[in-house]
Amino acid sequence: MKLFVLTHNPSKLKEISEILKEYGIEVLHMEGEKREIQSDNIEEIALNAAKDACSSQSVPIVVDDTALYIETLNGFPGPYAEYVYRTIGLRGILKLLEKEENRKAWFATAVVYCDGNIVKIFKGILEGSIAEEIRGNYGFGFDPIFIPIGQKKTLAEMLPEEKNKISHRSKAFRELAQWLVSEKTKLNKSQS
Amino acid sequence: MKLFVLTHNPSKLKEISEILKEYGIEVLHMEGEKREIQSDNIEEIALNAAKDACSSQSVPIVVDDTALYIETLNGFPGPYAEYVYRTIGLRGILKLLEKEENRKAWFATAVVYCDGNIVKIFKGILEGSIAEEIRGNYGFGFDPIFIPIGQKKTLAEMLPEEKNKISHRSKAFRELAQWLVSEKTKLNKSQS
Repeated sequence: MKLFVLTHNPSKLKEISEILKEYGIEVLHMEGEKREIQSDNIEEIALNAAKDACSSQSVPIVVDDTALYIETLNGFPGPYAEYVYRTIGLRGILKLLEKEENRKAWFATAVVYCDGNIVKIFKGILEGSIAEEIRGNYGFGFDPIFIPIGQKKTLAEMLPEEKNKISHRSKAFRELAQWLVSEKTKLNKSQS
Repeated sequence: MKLFVLTHNPSKLKEISEILKEYGIEVLHMEGEKREIQSDNIEEIALNAAKDACSSQSVPIVVDDTALYIETLNGFPGPYAEYVYRTIGLRGILKLLEKEENRKAWFATAVVYCDGNIVKIFKGILEGSIAEEIRGNYGFGFDPIFIPIGQKKTLAEMLPEEKNKISHRSKAFRELAQWLVSEKTKLNKSQS
């Protein structure tokens, strides 16, 4: 099975490819504009982007959106994590949390599949906390300051296969993969 | 002359009304969704929101978008100023600039007019710096920490009429007003 993923982030594409490979799904890079609206709700952002991209495509496509919520900052940076990463960066987040005891945070990913007939949404959440300092070289984005719940390492200190067992993105994409595989099984049965 | 303005911010609507009143233009509140895309470019955000709103209206409408750029934070909060205000707030910005000597910042407003035939864009910029502390009770948003260039007071320490003489928003809306008045004069001449 092949699936087009609309993203401008090569690290994300690689991560998604590795997760979906386990299900026999090959990820292809979809070129084109990812039109994102401003909203506090990542499901709404991903849904809009997918519908926009889907309207001009004849193949099944997938769009995802990820947010990082920090409890004591009223959810900041939320769905604007990518912009915040590009501007104030990891050091900006650490500065905002200086002398702060409540470091609770969570990642959320919304994945939208559409193929012209069906639009389906899948979601994954990873709870954790913001580290006191930047640690690790794997992953991307806020991984070097995010410690998953029950762990000591940041996401960036974990090997890709470790991260992909527990991450928000992998949870959402595994749900999508399981659904795709079950749909294919149903289709095969009806044709046999 | 009457003009519909699409905004969800009553303070902004009041400010715009006061500026345009000087030109004999009455501001009316347009209800409805302001659909904003994610972009680093406020002209693109305002243009998209205006086109989206305009397509369902038969009257001339105006949409504006404002950003606050802080030089040393690589432009942050930029077009996401409203979200940043709601989450980390004024104190968050001051914390990010603790012990920072370069406090240079600027506001920019893009105003888009559309009436089904014409789409016009007007822009206003106000240069200044971020104050060391929160000061003043007038205005809204980041006004209490923004000191316009050549001034000692923050925008929130200025009376509305003082702010409206120099602000980014007033510059953009005065350009719009002058254009509307000149278009009306042309129309009147051609009809006489």
